[in-house]
Amino acid sequence: MNSENSYSTFETIVPVRPDDIDMNQHVHNSKYLDYVLSARFDQMERCYQMPMSEFIERGFSWFVKTAHISHKRQLHLGDSAIVATKVSKIEGRSCHVEFTIIRQKTGKISAEGWFEYVMVCAETGRAVDIPEDIVEAYSV
Amino acid sequence: MNSENSYSTFETIVPVRPDDIDMNQHVHNSKYLDYVLSARFDQMERCYQMPMSEFIERGFSWFVKTAHISHKRQLHLGDSAIVATKVSKIEGRSCHVEFTIIRQKTGKISAEGWFEYVMVCAETGRAVDIPEDIVEAYSV
Amino acid sequence: MNSENSYSTFETIVPVRPDDIDMNQHVHNSKYLDYVLSARFDQMERCYQMPMSEFIERGFSWFVKTAHISHKRQLHLGDSAIVATKVSKIEGRSCHVEFTIIRQKTGKISAEGWFEYVMVCAETGRAVDIPEDIVEAYSV
Amino acid sequence: MNSENSYSTFETIVPVRPDDIDMNQHVHNSKYLDYVLSARFDQMERCYQMPMSEFIERGFSWFVKTAHISHKRQLHLGDSAIVATKVSKIEGRSCHVEFTIIRQKTGKISAEGWFEYVMVCAETGRAVDIPEDIVEAYSV
Repeated sequence: MNSENSYSTFETIVPVRPDDIDMNQHVHNSKYLDYVLSARFDQMERCYQMPMSEFIERGFSWFVKTAHISHKRQLHLGDSAIVATKVSKIEGRSCHVEFTIIRQKTGKISAEGWFEYVMVCAETGRAVDIPEDIVEAYSV
Repeated sequence: MNSENSYSTFETIVPVRPDDIDMNQHVHNSKYLDYVLSARFDQMERCYQMPMSEFIERGFSWFVKTAHISHKRQLHLGDSAIVATKVSKIEGRSCHVEFTIIRQKTGKISAEGWFEYVMVCAETGRAVDIPEDIVEAYSV
Repeated sequence: MNSENSYSTFETIVPVRPDDIDMNQHVHNSKYLDYVLSARFDQMERCYQMPMSEFIERGFSWFVKTAHISHKRQLHLGDSAIVATKVSKIEGRSCHVEFTIIRQKTGKISAEGWFEYVMVCAETGRAVDIPEDIVEAYSV
Repeated sequence: MNSENSYSTFETIVPVRPDDIDMNQHVHNSKYLDYVLSARFDQMERCYQMPMSEFIERGFSWFVKTAHISHKRQLHLGDSAIVATKVSKIEGRSCHVEFTIIRQKTGKISAEGWFEYVMVCAETGRAVDIPEDIVEAYSV
């Protein structure tokens, strides 16, 4: 049963680094996507018990097919981000993940959006069906 | 007259740097957004005759409100990207820019998407209406 | 009294992010310098009670004049770095900081080196003498 | 004959990208090392006729053992860097490369320094002796 919104939301704290700050004195826009990536890697291991290293050992990797991000409030030097992510759909070759980035100090939303990841064979780079045990591990 | 698709498309070549390559041996997904940023800065100066430095002197900056990117084919070490951008709408506080990233070697599309930028007062970070002369400069 | 080695060593934990990993499957060499920067910003606030924001308010900034880094063992995906830094000399316009980056999992040295920072007037970018109260704050 | 200073100097132009600019409104210090890396990759292919891809195919990679950089004048938004590098010594497992980064607009030195690279077996990450044909290719 893959109905939307039926999966868990997990959170990871990602501290802002000084090298993330750009000429506008706030976190550079593309770095927010890296914060989500960082949260997903943490959550794969800690929340789904399936770290990225296991995917790599099995010859798989995840590629970003689509990314969408909407910025609400800037993150600044000294901030930490709470990155909440949730699988909203996983089937066939793709996994759809929604995220919300919250400024820890204020609890207010900094950015939100979603990623569509595609499972690929690491060697060929070609998309492959997500194996059933992985679909299950992510369906929590 | 701000009808969509009435504006010019401009191109900038952005060479891939080795530090853009990630663990998957291709250009890291968030770097594609930086390539578009780089192209826009080049085109502001070269094609619209209004370099970023002029915006800054006038007390303005552009913030990313929304970014959307769809990946088709990976860029690799040694590649150059042709980044084509086009203003599709400019009014009020926001400017909507569509982009296509082409792998120069093959002429094939690597990624495409769009940005919504908002003009802000650099000092306060608050959104402001885009001055009329800037709307005109971009309406080419 | 500015004799070398008379100052305290402080430590900051910096988690490796996936976007720090390069084509060689380990932390990209230049990112180690960013880890030290991140540790210094944390320690300025937490250990010297003089956060970077205070420098900026007073019209100052720190520029890197020289950086030297020697790599011993690679950091990988999933690692955290313990970044230990120590002021070894502070006088005139410059502050000399030694660092050691330790792989938290093993306690072994990953890299070590030093930075020479110069205090600059933020507006002009010119080097200025470090004010006496700052020299004192750092002489702990 | 590996006497110092007997090798050629090669140059590569590296344009500054907006995402290289940090909170101090100039190129972030660690990015200069990435500019040198980018120049070396270009020169490996173009000047030594031995692109990085050939090293990888042969199962080799280059790791940075030591990096040393001294900053003279900042690079800014809109600048291009001329990165001149020269092998000053190549023997055993290591290759010593000197670099000078010049601000193209003014012809003045922005930074200078050196790298010590070590040849490694890509699979094990262990240092290996540089094969004789590679020493020769670099001894121009």
